[in-house]
Amino acid sequence: MIKVGIVGGTGYTGVELLRLLARHPQVELKAITSRKEAGMPVAEMFPNLRGRVKLAFSTPEESELEHCDVVFFATPNGVAMQQTRALLDAGVKVIDLAADFRIKDIAVWEHWYKMEHACPDLVAEAVYGLPEINRAAIKGARLIANPGCYPTAVQLGFLPLLESGAVDVGFLVADAKSGVSGAGRKAEISTLFAESADNFKAYAVGGHRHWPEIKQGLESFAGKPVGFTFVPHLLPLIRGIHATLYAKVSADIDLQSLFEKRYAGEPFVDVLPAGSHPETRSVRGANLCRIAVHRPAGSDTVVVLSVIDNLVKGAAGQAVQNMNILFDLPEDTALDAVGMLP
Amino acid sequence: MIKVGIVGGTGYTGVELLRLLARHPQVELKAITSRKEAGMPVAEMFPNLRGRVKLAFSTPEESELEHCDVVFFATPNGVAMQQTRALLDAGVKVIDLAADFRIKDIAVWEHWYKMEHACPDLVAEAVYGLPEINRAAIKGARLIANPGCYPTAVQLGFLPLLESGAVDVGFLVADAKSGVSGAGRKAEISTLFAESADNFKAYAVGGHRHWPEIKQGLESFAGKPVGFTFVPHLLPLIRGIHATLYAKVSADIDLQSLFEKRYAGEPFVDVLPAGSHPETRSVRGANLCRIAVHRPAGSDTVVVLSVIDNLVKGAAGQAVQNMNILFDLPEDTALDAVGMLP
Amino acid sequence: MIKVGIVGGTGYTGVELLRLLARHPQVELKAITSRKEAGMPVAEMFPNLRGRVKLAFSTPEESELEHCDVVFFATPNGVAMQQTRALLDAGVKVIDLAADFRIKDIAVWEHWYKMEHACPDLVAEAVYGLPEINRAAIKGARLIANPGCYPTAVQLGFLPLLESGAVDVGFLVADAKSGVSGAGRKAEISTLFAESADNFKAYAVGGHRHWPEIKQGLESFAGKPVGFTFVPHLLPLIRGIHATLYAKVSADIDLQSLFEKRYAGEPFVDVLPAGSHPETRSVRGANLCRIAVHRPAGSDTVVVLSVIDNLVKGAAGQAVQNMNILFDLPEDTALDAVGMLP
Amino acid sequence: MIKVGIVGGTGYTGVELLRLLARHPQVELKAITSRKEAGMPVAEMFPNLRGRVKLAFSTPEESELEHCDVVFFATPNGVAMQQTRALLDAGVKVIDLAADFRIKDIAVWEHWYKMEHACPDLVAEAVYGLPEINRAAIKGARLIANPGCYPTAVQLGFLPLLESGAVDVGFLVADAKSGVSGAGRKAEISTLFAESADNFKAYAVGGHRHWPEIKQGLESFAGKPVGFTFVPHLLPLIRGIHATLYAKVSADIDLQSLFEKRYAGEPFVDVLPAGSHPETRSVRGANLCRIAVHRPAGSDTVVVLSVIDNLVKGAAGQAVQNMNILFDLPEDTALDAVGMLP
Repeated sequence: MIKVGIVGGTGYTGVELLRLLARHPQVELKAITSRKEAGMPVAEMFPNLRGRVKLAFSTPEESELEHCDVVFFATPNGVAMQQTRALLDAGVKVIDLAADFRIKDIAVWEHWYKMEHACPDLVAEAVYGLPEINRAAIKGARLIANPGCYPTAVQLGFLPLLESGAVDVGFLVADAKSGVSGAGRKAEISTLFAESADNFKAYAVGGHRHWPEIKQGLESFAGKPVGFTFVPHLLPLIRGIHATLYAKVSADIDLQSLFEKRYAGEPFVDVLPAGSHPETRSVRGANLCRIAVHRPAGSDTVVVLSVIDNLVKGAAGQAVQNMNILFDLPEDTALDAVGMLP
Repeated sequence: MIKVGIVGGTGYTGVELLRLLARHPQVELKAITSRKEAGMPVAEMFPNLRGRVKLAFSTPEESELEHCDVVFFATPNGVAMQQTRALLDAGVKVIDLAADFRIKDIAVWEHWYKMEHACPDLVAEAVYGLPEINRAAIKGARLIANPGCYPTAVQLGFLPLLESGAVDVGFLVADAKSGVSGAGRKAEISTLFAESADNFKAYAVGGHRHWPEIKQGLESFAGKPVGFTFVPHLLPLIRGIHATLYAKVSADIDLQSLFEKRYAGEPFVDVLPAGSHPETRSVRGANLCRIAVHRPAGSDTVVVLSVIDNLVKGAAGQAVQNMNILFDLPEDTALDAVGMLP
Repeated sequence: MIKVGIVGGTGYTGVELLRLLARHPQVELKAITSRKEAGMPVAEMFPNLRGRVKLAFSTPEESELEHCDVVFFATPNGVAMQQTRALLDAGVKVIDLAADFRIKDIAVWEHWYKMEHACPDLVAEAVYGLPEINRAAIKGARLIANPGCYPTAVQLGFLPLLESGAVDVGFLVADAKSGVSGAGRKAEISTLFAESADNFKAYAVGGHRHWPEIKQGLESFAGKPVGFTFVPHLLPLIRGIHATLYAKVSADIDLQSLFEKRYAGEPFVDVLPAGSHPETRSVRGANLCRIAVHRPAGSDTVVVLSVIDNLVKGAAGQAVQNMNILFDLPEDTALDAVGMLP
Repeated sequence: MIKVGIVGGTGYTGVELLRLLARHPQVELKAITSRKEAGMPVAEMFPNLRGRVKLAFSTPEESELEHCDVVFFATPNGVAMQQTRALLDAGVKVIDLAADFRIKDIAVWEHWYKMEHACPDLVAEAVYGLPEINRAAIKGARLIANPGCYPTAVQLGFLPLLESGAVDVGFLVADAKSGVSGAGRKAEISTLFAESADNFKAYAVGGHRHWPEIKQGLESFAGKPVGFTFVPHLLPLIRGIHATLYAKVSADIDLQSLFEKRYAGEPFVDVLPAGSHPETRSVRGANLCRIAVHRPAGSDTVVVLSVIDNLVKGAAGQAVQNMNILFDLPEDTALDAVGMLP
């Protein structure tokens, strides 16, 4: 059994990790920390877990995380970087669901996250946990930077186009929409039901932290600088990201077959038949990215539609997928849920 | 022109007052106070008001409320009772949308609202602002206690039954459901979109502050003590209350005609034809209570269905209706909106 | 492996059966019929099933249902009764998710369902598939009448009260609310998004088909006639039923402990601690009924709150639970999903 | 008083026309036709209109539309073109809310709408009813083609950029999102609540009828052919369109001031301050287009955000605005509603 600890389990990625790990046959949950809620049974805060997770929240001190095999950080940005070195030194694998280890250029990271990085050397070591491009490196990693939700949907959508040189890299557009759970479980007016329901808006058009993360990925796929515009929007639904991607086709390639071949062996990327429109609900609760590629008639524009559940393939599910790879388990262990439709 | 001040305009009843008063031909908005947001144009916080409300929030000190003709309190409970006497002394009429003056029995009020009342004598003077029972008294009042949202829907639904003695008063049940805007514009986890959407639950079954307010009304209609159970629920919609009321019929009365006669002259109560089921959306944005009365076949139970928009007939609209009565204006001035459907 | 056939798989209970059975280790899906969609791969209509269900819809003729071990009917009322005898004669077990075999009194059934019953003798034989009251009978049955969604939530909520004689049976009220998926996957204006979203209403107050089904159950629990009022409402959410039940306490019983004892051994009924309010989302996608029991202070009214996912414990999940019992499998096989929250 | 007739009043644009016209002081509603519902009081189908609209649906024959001053067609495509000539000949003004007269190139229209056009000469005469570009022509028109909902939001967003030559016309992208009421009041599975709620998807990426309508407009603004990609999406909300527009800046222009100047005199276009993100709810129920223009840091991409209520500025409200212009009334008569927020 793999001994698992979770730091910061009171948010949505935390409860989602618990929901998934509760059904994982190789996992023994050892600790879930929350200084603020220490002592409260997890299932009291999240009643869906009644009868399935017996743990109570514990303080970091009590939690003996250094005796775990792997620790997930489901914490705000800037927490994992303070605690990771000690865990690695104790032989514990670390999977960070926050952004501390995602961006290789420390100056860029510090600019966007408005703090000094505590351990630049570990950023260099960390493996970016997108299995579809880094599976081999993940297998041997000590420290995994679990990708952001938007970055997962956008990068998987652009990947085949950029690897193959099929598009002009100078004008890539990602019009992305996320459900409200992406904003986290935080008491804020802007994400109240009465503010977000029956409403739609863009936000952070001037600049969003996922922009440099995605750009780093796109440039590594293309092997050169890209011009990339990213506009996130807030959707009145709980779970789900839909990224609509635009680029100019620059080569005469069968796009459908390009995508199908690239993802042929991938258990968690599903390329839909030509002409399809993936729905976010088709992946609700499931660790899947569903993609369709279109080229509107008579146009040189390619339109890619990419959907994920932001809490699963965009966060906790991908983290479990990374754990499965790390520990040489079948990659879909505990990740076999069918999307909940309707 | 009536000079109007609003104390505490940053919540949902505040913005709703502004939305309604912006179209009131006899009203001149003089001040809207918020110590915290003083200086910010109202339309910056509520962009629907751009071009329609030019005021900025001001501190109570700057606001010179004592020069107004009427002041609305759209504040948390316990604020109005501190400021009302000075306004009344200055000749200003006061309409309190909170609960400070609703319950005549001071001990009961203090028990449910967990504070000492600042001015019991004004409670005695205050008129409960439900025009359908108190129109004449409202006309001559200085101080109006605007009813709560649930109390409006529930009392209007039970009123004809209790006045007429048609039901057993020993076992009255109100199963009430409210949209999330009823919880106010406050940063709280439980009313986040990701918590409240696609979800439904009861709350406060053990006891809710609107229970004594409603009970006081029901007993005044019946002229004797009643046994009354009240269970509120949180609906995943923005605006709307639906109260489903149950009682045992104790007299052989034509219920449909009882309701139709009682509300025949009321501009803001609409009794639907027999067999109808009122929908909350039919009163969305409108100052209306729609009611249907049923007696399931072969049963001695009467079921009343009563819907309002909690922010309009349940709060700001009723407050404007009370103001219109106070100032001898046509009762529907600025209250002629048609429910927004779909 | 259990060979399974499904008749009528294009509705919501059909796709839910598939979602659950796709993960059932002892089940081999043999056929899913739809005359209208014959030939279409199931996963084309329900893209969440891509990669998980390979079957295409087939005509009843092609489907060789008589070679199955068990056949589920996920059809409109009146279909199963036409086909059940032939299947039983061929040694196939039948689980009907519709209402054909739920009501023992044929005259009552014919009155509410507006058709003549095709096989009254099979109604007599059929076992009502609520495991919490009929587990032993289910084990030996050939034909199971899977309970309706409202009836499951309401009966489980009243059961301990009636069995124990704790309440006055003369005035039982169930104020029930259902998500829109309960109306099925049918092209109708009243359940369009633009009609049902941000809206709430009661319906069928004059009489609903689940009333006689529930009443039959309540009377069997109580051992005598009951007075029962049932008011269903349409909730703007996809999955979930919340039943709020009211009765007059007639005996001095510890209600919390009554419920806990009654359901102590039940894997799919979860009695919450005193003072709780179950949320529909805590059972979203899960085969669970969560129940809380309240007695508001100083009152002789008991209020029971009972929630289920109408498509799982209220339909397909309960059907799989019945199949597991029929075939002597662990009762929770394929029913171990944790409620999806958020 | 202006005598008004409405053809086809059972859809969402029909009821919205009624909601707006019910408060229009210069309008006398003479007839609203529906062959199917003839005889039914309008307020029975749309209970929000109870007490406000006394008309019943009538057959076209009874309706004596030729005695009206103006007739609105709120009908499916292809109906207005059959009846318009007779009305014009009788001296009646016609405002078509469908697409029959929007596209000047008959071949293009026939290709996209899959039918033969009944009166190409009237297409030539018809004025495209977007007041912000055609106010003078509308004033003198007999026949107005009321713009589509997407076309209103997209054209108003691109207009200043194209008129001024600020952007490269070769690669214009509109990523547009519409609430479900845009699909109309038709019994279809894909727009059921249980299909559309908590879900998001693109549709018609291969080609949508609004593409040629928008392209025609953009080319007239630019004075030359444009490359234009249009991707519509279905939003889980009732009313609202959000268009996110992308283009490459090709001239050094102050974009904020460009938009502010272009729309300075427009009563129903509101350019937000720099850095803003318009929300669909800020125009819910209001005849307004709110626009913000962004240029993400260091990029040569301009991003325009444009929101409308699809049933108001995108349909019925704009139709009433056109009527007001036609009859020389103040343009905002009956169009002074404040957006309903929350």
